[in-house]
Amino acid sequence: MVELSLPGLADLQRAARRIAGVAVKTPLVESRFLNETLGYRVLLKCETLQRTGSFKFRGAYNALTALDAADRRRGVVAVSSGNHGQGVAEAARLLGLPATIVMPRDAPASKRVRTLRSGATIVDYDRATEDRNAVAAGIIESTGVTLIHPFDNPDVIAGQGTVGLEITEQAGRRDADVSIVVVPCGGGGLSAGVGLAIRPLFPDCAIRLVEPEGFDDYRRSLAAGQCLSNPTTFGSVCDALMAEAPGPRGFVINRAHHAEAVTVSDQAVLDAVAFAARELKLVVEPGGAVGLAALLEGKINCRGGTVVVVLSGANIDDSLLANVLTRNWPRLQPHSAAVGGWTRLLS
Amino acid sequence: MVELSLPGLADLQRAARRIAGVAVKTPLVESRFLNETLGYRVLLKCETLQRTGSFKFRGAYNALTALDAADRRRGVVAVSSGNHGQGVAEAARLLGLPATIVMPRDAPASKRVRTLRSGATIVDYDRATEDRNAVAAGIIESTGVTLIHPFDNPDVIAGQGTVGLEITEQAGRRDADVSIVVVPCGGGGLSAGVGLAIRPLFPDCAIRLVEPEGFDDYRRSLAAGQCLSNPTTFGSVCDALMAEAPGPRGFVINRAHHAEAVTVSDQAVLDAVAFAARELKLVVEPGGAVGLAALLEGKINCRGGTVVVVLSGANIDDSLLANVLTRNWPRLQPHSAAVGGWTRLLS
Repeated sequence: MVELSLPGLADLQRAARRIAGVAVKTPLVESRFLNETLGYRVLLKCETLQRTGSFKFRGAYNALTALDAADRRRGVVAVSSGNHGQGVAEAARLLGLPATIVMPRDAPASKRVRTLRSGATIVDYDRATEDRNAVAAGIIESTGVTLIHPFDNPDVIAGQGTVGLEITEQAGRRDADVSIVVVPCGGGGLSAGVGLAIRPLFPDCAIRLVEPEGFDDYRRSLAAGQCLSNPTTFGSVCDALMAEAPGPRGFVINRAHHAEAVTVSDQAVLDAVAFAARELKLVVEPGGAVGLAALLEGKINCRGGTVVVVLSGANIDDSLLANVLTRNWPRLQPHSAAVGGWTRLLS
Repeated sequence: MVELSLPGLADLQRAARRIAGVAVKTPLVESRFLNETLGYRVLLKCETLQRTGSFKFRGAYNALTALDAADRRRGVVAVSSGNHGQGVAEAARLLGLPATIVMPRDAPASKRVRTLRSGATIVDYDRATEDRNAVAAGIIESTGVTLIHPFDNPDVIAGQGTVGLEITEQAGRRDADVSIVVVPCGGGGLSAGVGLAIRPLFPDCAIRLVEPEGFDDYRRSLAAGQCLSNPTTFGSVCDALMAEAPGPRGFVINRAHHAEAVTVSDQAVLDAVAFAARELKLVVEPGGAVGLAALLEGKINCRGGTVVVVLSGANIDDSLLANVLTRNWPRLQPHSAAVGGWTRLLS
């Protein structure tokens, strides 16, 4: 058995010092309307407002800062559907490193544009026919660059954990006793990091992961006690959450925190994206809205406590957001505290 | 000459105590991308995330709390294109008062739905042919309800001033030396309240008002030293900023603060709405985005300081937001620090 290097609370605190003044300390926002709709108190951790539009910048910046001088000179490569790529590209720009991003050809246009904007080189691959890891391995062999894994990297997990450190600080300032933290889940790096930060202060706090239907590798893996893969790597509206399988490091950490996972449908996710824009006034991408979707669908039992839900990213294409906003949409009923869900008013 | 009752700092502090735990303490958000685009530091006061989707709730709740028991029983009436109406309706719901909102027939559908959602009664009028004040006067005469003016009311101004109190506190926590506060301007109540809060702590801070083109009553009034009216009361995309003339109380206060006003075109405002959704990940309505528009258009000289811009509201119709997002849009150039504006990449 291989010994895995796992981050601890001290690594998260070091990451927080490294990203201070570079990353955005994102707000923990409360919506009275959401509270009344759900019938319990919800605090929204708005990583949508993070630099590059997702939490990924934190882990990327921390990991790049951890490289030695020789590795920095050679540069980095990342394999990413978009948000991790943007995070690495922007961190590399700020630190003066060359970065190459291996990206699926069907990634949202906005994510491609933003990656290019940071000066990174994009190498395309086909999600259905090509092995992205083989593409990255070829680049590493020929150039000697360092791979920055999107989640199975202790520095990346520590960086994502700063989301959790901020939650504990911000919730503490509001005297909120956090009973559940709901986290979107692809490879499990964000939930692992958040759990590492939250549990020391809120030892009874439940960690709930949310995955898109058809990509419930974490739910099945937690049930089986070992890492299981998804049957496919494409086909969800949540382009940010289509990891092949849990990362081994995050899996060990999430299991230790007794994390549990639920799934939400594409339809529920798009409902949540619309709800976020209409009612919360926040732009959220599908993968970033799965936690909110799970609450709105009543998929998580949230009675009797304060729930923190991480809105993890906002890089949605204009056309998709416009589409979601203009479908013939059922209206929310006036101030109905729906039990485990939200009721609709057919207008 | 009539003596006007004007609010002071103590009234703002009392308003802050009244709205605590009811209104949202909205975050002061920083976008690294916006800073790099403009070449100076900007802090965004997100009243878009306020209860009812605009700052208006603050003043409404404070004014309703100030009523005596008999007036509360009879209830209130407000004349509003939407946001003030929503604020009054929601404050009335929370305080258990009956509320009637006199609203133009062409107000955004989302604002109408939200007003109804709070249980208020809507009375329609035609912006082009009817005198809204006469409609309200008729209601007051027949029912004895109290008029809650949207801006020319000391309790309303004091409530809006809590936006400024939070800015001073939040900017102070970041060691930001605020040199300019940029505020959307309709009747001038928000800017007056914000000025009252800001100037004691930042005596050299400039107060800049932003109006839509064709509705520059404040700019002309400040130049003339007396309240002048707009030639029309409809026709701007900024439905929230079409007040007829400055409120006398706010005008006295804004003049005392040496406020200056600039104007922005409808096109610049819609550009700013799109920029906010795409780059800042915030839903902002046209009237709430005029301050951002003024910065993006280089209309305000912001060299050498930290600028706070109030994003004052977010109640935009889905169809307009979708339309703004799907126009064939020029892309932002990669990390160009444009001088007094933002450059575009024709893709």
